[in-house]
Amino acid sequence: MRITVVGDEPAELEVALRAGLEEDLLVVSGGLGPTHDDRTIELLALAAGRPLAVDEELAAEIEELSRRVAERLRRPYADFAGGVRKQATLPAGAEWVGLVGTAPAVVLDTGSCVAVALPGPPRELQELWPRVLETAPLRRLRERSHAPERRVLRLFGVSESAVAQSLAAAGGEGDGVAVTICARDFEIHVDLLAEPGAEGRAAALEAALAQANERYLFSRDERSTAELVLDLLRARDLTLATAESCTGGLVAARLTDVPGSSDVFLGGIIAYADEVKIAQLGVPEGVLAEHGAVSEEAAAAMAQGARARLGADVAVSVTGVAGPGGGTGEKPVGLVFLHAAGPGGELARRVDFPGDRETIRQRAAVVALHLVRRLVTES
Amino acid sequence: MRITVVGDEPAELEVALRAGLEEDLLVVSGGLGPTHDDRTIELLALAAGRPLAVDEELAAEIEELSRRVAERLRRPYADFAGGVRKQATLPAGAEWVGLVGTAPAVVLDTGSCVAVALPGPPRELQELWPRVLETAPLRRLRERSHAPERRVLRLFGVSESAVAQSLAAAGGEGDGVAVTICARDFEIHVDLLAEPGAEGRAAALEAALAQANERYLFSRDERSTAELVLDLLRARDLTLATAESCTGGLVAARLTDVPGSSDVFLGGIIAYADEVKIAQLGVPEGVLAEHGAVSEEAAAAMAQGARARLGADVAVSVTGVAGPGGGTGEKPVGLVFLHAAGPGGELARRVDFPGDRETIRQRAAVVALHLVRRLVTES
Repeated sequence: MRITVVGDEPAELEVALRAGLEEDLLVVSGGLGPTHDDRTIELLALAAGRPLAVDEELAAEIEELSRRVAERLRRPYADFAGGVRKQATLPAGAEWVGLVGTAPAVVLDTGSCVAVALPGPPRELQELWPRVLETAPLRRLRERSHAPERRVLRLFGVSESAVAQSLAAAGGEGDGVAVTICARDFEIHVDLLAEPGAEGRAAALEAALAQANERYLFSRDERSTAELVLDLLRARDLTLATAESCTGGLVAARLTDVPGSSDVFLGGIIAYADEVKIAQLGVPEGVLAEHGAVSEEAAAAMAQGARARLGADVAVSVTGVAGPGGGTGEKPVGLVFLHAAGPGGELARRVDFPGDRETIRQRAAVVALHLVRRLVTES
Repeated sequence: MRITVVGDEPAELEVALRAGLEEDLLVVSGGLGPTHDDRTIELLALAAGRPLAVDEELAAEIEELSRRVAERLRRPYADFAGGVRKQATLPAGAEWVGLVGTAPAVVLDTGSCVAVALPGPPRELQELWPRVLETAPLRRLRERSHAPERRVLRLFGVSESAVAQSLAAAGGEGDGVAVTICARDFEIHVDLLAEPGAEGRAAALEAALAQANERYLFSRDERSTAELVLDLLRARDLTLATAESCTGGLVAARLTDVPGSSDVFLGGIIAYADEVKIAQLGVPEGVLAEHGAVSEEAAAAMAQGARARLGADVAVSVTGVAGPGGGTGEKPVGLVFLHAAGPGGELARRVDFPGDRETIRQRAAVVALHLVRRLVTES
């Protein structure tokens, strides 16, 4: 698959369309409007070597629609007439489905490629696409294609290179199995795509990768980590609260991004200032004075405070130096303490994140979710 | 300009790179990692007809970096060695700048095209790009080209089509001035790009647009709205707190994303459960019983509670139905109440957002920031 984004410049559009026509399927959106700078159909016809002609049946339908629009806007239909003829002009051999607006969806089967032109407005595009899928050229194309089988492994706490090594040790990709290894948010996402016939090899590869990385494997589906953590808690009938300093709400935002999170997640305290840590989370002043706000002790007090104050079964806290300022020799930018407290025990974690403010914050939020996962699954 | 998005499939990547090499400048990002599926360099060399070889100087630098990472992660360096050689492999004649991570930025001048390969991680890409611009091939290219002058207008509370109409009324784009009008996060971002010689026309167009949309214009620079709000508060020596229900920490996350936000932002309460609204924000039980958690009254009590409990000068609250569930006839999905309270007065806002959960939450967070902006600038 290739996605190309081009502007209205005819030469660029033509190059992109010619390249697209070399594939089995070309889908274009936009450039079907009534004005001179809407050039998709004209250039598609040029690229496909087809003459252009007005489709009178289509013209009649667009005219009917445009007369209603003209009436509503109290403008003479003559203002629209040119645009109607333009929008009803199609490459020879093309069929159209539609209309939602005044632009049709156009399907052109060149023999070697099925080209589909859809209107740009999302509502029109979304409504016309299912109808395009039902046209004969698209039906034929779909019968010829097979979606590859997909398997996923989600790992945490391992490096991309180590996973690559275990893939190589397991025989590597090839023979109908494509594997992508992608570091995302401090997690490693492994996707295996098997062509028809290679499902057995993909399953064996997946099993080998899962075994080699057993310690790090936390999911075999595509739920987000926040969703997975909420599901684990829900299954155990446990509620959750957060206490965040350097992540400033990101842990809670990831959790509440999941629909239905409210039956597990009660709320959180974002304690950026020390006074808020003391007043809202009950962190003892002595802890802050002796160990500082970025410390194992402060993180523990924050999690325990959130758990007690918000009446949650489980609470997780994050405190650290997100930078770019505020780092010291003893507590450099990237140093983050996390703590999870639950009915069955507590877990603490200290991390030194490389990276900038954004990276440190996002990664700390991910590690916080994984700390809750470990607390819940290991205790 | 053409933007092409391709996956890791070698054949597709090669087609895209070959097409890019026909232009004056080709910029690629991603695919420079240590694993086998990172194929940008290998395919760039193939497309440009250049042999590949390990650059020993680069290998030494990547090794040094990787040894530090290995130490930090407490893993053997042997895990990384293969990746280091791979990442130090360059097409003949290419130069490299970097490193931020273990992937260098690579510049290859083919004579007819300058090809630049940048690492995918945004932080690495952003840090390396200015250094790429200072290489000899990019300097030569930039001397041949002219950057258009850029002017920006940021509007809030107006529709995209109304801004498009005011643009048309002001004479529209053309004559060397390109204008983009983009709806983003409930704001309208207008960018004017003037070719050399058209600066006067761009300035006149900008002035006309600013006048026609004066009520909605809130910025003429590219600071984020969170940054702008923090700057306004800082200039007035005011502190800020948040009380969030449906946004679940997104307002605080946007604020704390800005470096140095801690001198203005004290913290926030994420009150997802009603018990948390009552206990942590002091929302009267009667308000929740009579008006519900999604109400003007609850929003007011939340903001006032956050202001008092966290000892902030200004507080802003958000409560609403983010969906997909939880909507009723009276309180449908998308209904959000916001409230800002400060030393000089209060402001309330009710909004009915269209869209899905993610859109509703993000837009509500943006409106919360604008409510603080209005409270601070209007009182």
